[in-house]
Amino acid sequence: MKDTFARAENLLARIDQLAAISEDETGVTRTFGTPAFLRGSALVRSWFEQAGLATRVDSIGNVRGRLESRHPVAKTLVIASHIDTVVNAGKYDGPLGVLLGLDLLENLLAAKTGLPFHVELIAFSDEEGVRFHTTYLGSKVVAGSFDQTLLTKADAQGVTLTEALRTMGGDPAALAQDAIPADQWLGYFEAHIEQGPVLWENRIPVALVTAIAGQQRVELTWRGMAGHAGTVPMDMRQDALAGAAEFVLAVEQFGLRHKAELVATVGKLDVRGAASNVIPGDVVCSLDLRSADAACLGTAYEELRSLASQIAESRRLTLHWNPIQQTAPAVCDAHLNELLAQAIGEAGHAVVPLVSGAGHDAVPVSAVAPATMLFVRCYKGISHNPLENVELADVAAAIDVSDRFLHLLSTHYQTHHSA
Amino acid sequence: MKDTFARAENLLARIDQLAAISEDETGVTRTFGTPAFLRGSALVRSWFEQAGLATRVDSIGNVRGRLESRHPVAKTLVIASHIDTVVNAGKYDGPLGVLLGLDLLENLLAAKTGLPFHVELIAFSDEEGVRFHTTYLGSKVVAGSFDQTLLTKADAQGVTLTEALRTMGGDPAALAQDAIPADQWLGYFEAHIEQGPVLWENRIPVALVTAIAGQQRVELTWRGMAGHAGTVPMDMRQDALAGAAEFVLAVEQFGLRHKAELVATVGKLDVRGAASNVIPGDVVCSLDLRSADAACLGTAYEELRSLASQIAESRRLTLHWNPIQQTAPAVCDAHLNELLAQAIGEAGHAVVPLVSGAGHDAVPVSAVAPATMLFVRCYKGISHNPLENVELADVAAAIDVSDRFLHLLSTHYQTHHSA
Repeated sequence: MKDTFARAENLLARIDQLAAISEDETGVTRTFGTPAFLRGSALVRSWFEQAGLATRVDSIGNVRGRLESRHPVAKTLVIASHIDTVVNAGKYDGPLGVLLGLDLLENLLAAKTGLPFHVELIAFSDEEGVRFHTTYLGSKVVAGSFDQTLLTKADAQGVTLTEALRTMGGDPAALAQDAIPADQWLGYFEAHIEQGPVLWENRIPVALVTAIAGQQRVELTWRGMAGHAGTVPMDMRQDALAGAAEFVLAVEQFGLRHKAELVATVGKLDVRGAASNVIPGDVVCSLDLRSADAACLGTAYEELRSLASQIAESRRLTLHWNPIQQTAPAVCDAHLNELLAQAIGEAGHAVVPLVSGAGHDAVPVSAVAPATMLFVRCYKGISHNPLENVELADVAAAIDVSDRFLHLLSTHYQTHHSA
Repeated sequence: MKDTFARAENLLARIDQLAAISEDETGVTRTFGTPAFLRGSALVRSWFEQAGLATRVDSIGNVRGRLESRHPVAKTLVIASHIDTVVNAGKYDGPLGVLLGLDLLENLLAAKTGLPFHVELIAFSDEEGVRFHTTYLGSKVVAGSFDQTLLTKADAQGVTLTEALRTMGGDPAALAQDAIPADQWLGYFEAHIEQGPVLWENRIPVALVTAIAGQQRVELTWRGMAGHAGTVPMDMRQDALAGAAEFVLAVEQFGLRHKAELVATVGKLDVRGAASNVIPGDVVCSLDLRSADAACLGTAYEELRSLASQIAESRRLTLHWNPIQQTAPAVCDAHLNELLAQAIGEAGHAVVPLVSGAGHDAVPVSAVAPATMLFVRCYKGISHNPLENVELADVAAAIDVSDRFLHLLSTHYQTHHSA
């Protein structure tokens, strides 16, 4: 039996091999359905097959390998993450969870440890949504919530999703058959880099994810009166940038006051027709609000909307408040989380419950099955960037915790589900 | 004798004729030395000649017409403004002052009213500085402060100023001879649209300019740490936009506190690599400070610099403070302003002293000669824009005031300078 460090080294070597396959030479880019993506997918499939899993690529391009239990009527635990990337990505966002899952199953097979439930290891084909501007294509098919109207959606080159699927060897007509029926799910487990700084700053290798934050995105347009910076007196101005700046600070203050429940960000701010000698008359900015608590998210949205209106009114600006996107929070399963917390504790680590501010495949899955996630510390919290990195010891810790989690889940399943 | 309304109608008709000459068909664009500029200049020259002025085009392209006094040793009053424009300009910025000057001289000639001093009417060739990114080329030659090193400066097409002058028929070697020696100046008078909203808002046709504001321009770069808007907790952020927003509001507050002495504007603000789901790590903004009081301008500059440093320090941001431009205030001549104020009062208008926040040819001229300016109300203060407009009654008022000013100046000159 290899120790967890040797397994972690093997896992990281595979991540390097996969990361060498990219649309461009300098970074890691494998967006959904591209030739580089298909080469990466074929490599992952070959690893699944070599491990002895019953492997296939489904109609949306997910690589799926099954380890069947000896109990044919058993339920299925899905272990998964994604193998598509953003443009100029890091190596670990996605592949870490897939290849950690593969390592877990290889370890079980080597030890000839049977499980009382089936396991399906899935490398989702599209989580990032770069190509078709729609996230979770892969996991939505598996969760049975794929929106058929997306098939006519075109990418930047005008290729529709239907055409892209055919090029990949997928079958748009078979998408519904690739769902795992709700009654067959035992649960869902995904390991993923944190993509944030909490574990890094606190020097803790792994964390338990309690929820994936819901999100509200808004585009705000502030209109005042453009004017000459030299000739319009201070008290006759309708400065759209000053209004937007007041909002930026109000959002920050609101976020700090409610920092336990949410994050609030103005990431974009564009002064239209900007010049250093022109008083800004037209400013567009964004608002990104995230919280694990749907009620809190709704309240925050309304309060910030009201604050923005007050700012606009007091400054004689007009404000256009345009909601862009709204996703509900996804809560992880209490029972699976209890087992995962137990596994983390047994492995000797502090149990840190975290809310994921980034979206994950667990979002669509949690609508049909109990889901949990394990976060792994990454370098300074940096992600979606070539600087993305994880440490060997943290990967070993994640392997150790995941082994224990599978064991605890087996024991619990046998106690409660055995005939 | 025509009344001032008839004269104003004639003046506005000439402005329309000149505005019809443009580099593009839809707007008014006559930047220094272009074919459209030269056609416009030729039209103005023909009007000067028809009026009976001794007219020539000097080496920098200024159109200059002289009305000689019968006293050969008399000093020279320069009445001037500019005939170049910004891109997609209005009709009145510049031409109003030139053609009002022409109207004054035509009126004197029609009435056979001799003056005890010479008058030189000048249509400056470059005030806006669009083509060579340097303002006041025309008036600097007349004031004797032309910087010879500018001759090698190239425009966007790589044409140097020397080459441009030769194309226009000018002589770079003769520039120094076109200066009016300091001891020959009696003074300088320019009428110009306000380009700001004070007269419009207060329903007053004209104003007295007491000074042309000095200016400080700074580029500020704020650097924090870019991060994922979903995963970095509120209290672990180094948000460069929040820092810049605090500065925008600090500048506004500072400006409002000192609104009698200055204007302060952040006109540009650029979030580098902006995305709605990324905490801004890199923001560049501008600062434009203007005041008629050099000491006040210096204090404001230092106070805002210190404020910016405090904001950066308290937010763990780095700040780069890059001074871009600095021009000293130009103060109008107290005695000429007294006469102009008297003229405004005699014409029945409230005497409103204004500081010009925009630059004017009076800036270089005031370094060698007593200068004064008369502002004329323009529609909503809009300028550098096709919406620029002036009302007939206001032009008539400006003509009336200018007539009276010339008369008062004559009387005063005769009292003090006659042999």
